[in-house]
Amino acid sequence: MNTSNSTNEIIVKMVLNNWNTALSRVDAVFSELSNEELYKQIAPGKNRGIYILGHLTAIHDRMIPLLGPGKQHFPELFELFVTKGDNPSAEIPEPPTLRESWQIINQLVEQQIKKVKTNEWLEKHTAVSKEEFVKEPSRNKLNVIINRTVHLSYHLGQLALLKKKKQ
Amino acid sequence: MNTSNSTNEIIVKMVLNNWNTALSRVDAVFSELSNEELYKQIAPGKNRGIYILGHLTAIHDRMIPLLGPGKQHFPELFELFVTKGDNPSAEIPEPPTLRESWQIINQLVEQQIKKVKTNEWLEKHTAVSKEEFVKEPSRNKLNVIINRTVHLSYHLGQLALLKKKKQ
Repeated sequence: MNTSNSTNEIIVKMVLNNWNTALSRVDAVFSELSNEELYKQIAPGKNRGIYILGHLTAIHDRMIPLLGPGKQHFPELFELFVTKGDNPSAEIPEPPTLRESWQIINQLVEQQIKKVKTNEWLEKHTAVSKEEFVKEPSRNKLNVIINRTVHLSYHLGQLALLKKKKQ
Repeated sequence: MNTSNSTNEIIVKMVLNNWNTALSRVDAVFSELSNEELYKQIAPGKNRGIYILGHLTAIHDRMIPLLGPGKQHFPELFELFVTKGDNPSAEIPEPPTLRESWQIINQLVEQQIKKVKTNEWLEKHTAVSKEEFVKEPSRNKLNVIINRTVHLSYHLGQLALLKKKKQ
């Protein structure tokens, strides 16, 4: 292994560690919240926990095709939890269904991540053309992980408000 | 420039872009909030906006010595906004003072970041010993930025709740 590979390995490990930590923390909050608590708003008039559960599942579902050959698994969730905002009177899947979808997507994303070799992380993700990528080399697979880690953390800060302890 | 340097440059640029984006978004929310709005809690019984302003300033202040030779500028803020939780009856600096401290720290951190050369980002940060660093090479300067970007985003998700528009 040369120095360059070893450097890349450290960086990839570092980024994936941050992703896995954020994911575990969010997963722990969802596990801790009862189905009833999921229906609570994070603050008066703001998104409910269940909306954030659906939202994160839908956003992570979209990571599957970005990281390599693979398809979105629950495309219908994107419309409900990303395109549309939270609306307590809208019909959405029940907590047990969404909890299961969340786990399925977590597993599929993990499988996709494992397929990417160290030297492939700086290659373009699948939604960017070769021409665009020459101009913007940061639109690579590793940046997808960094960006989604930041997004996860944004919502973790909100989900923490549903927990009984002050955060 | 060899391939390895160019790879490192892309990665550093990518990480700093994510940091700068998160910082600008948080800064925009603080600018948008009036002094009065800063005293509101993000959710009933939770931290006030002003506590988060002090908290982020104190945490970023600690980045200064981590990234290279340099000192914490407002060490007293750490006690008030990190060691202690938010307590509406505690005496803390007024919004104009904290807003100014936040700007000063942002500038100092930016200066520290500019001093780090591309090939120095994977070197150990100053709070880790050489022995520990051999075992945990991810405790480097670049990881400080990734970690603080994730932390910023956590609180951005909460600060967004103080804005009038639904987030």
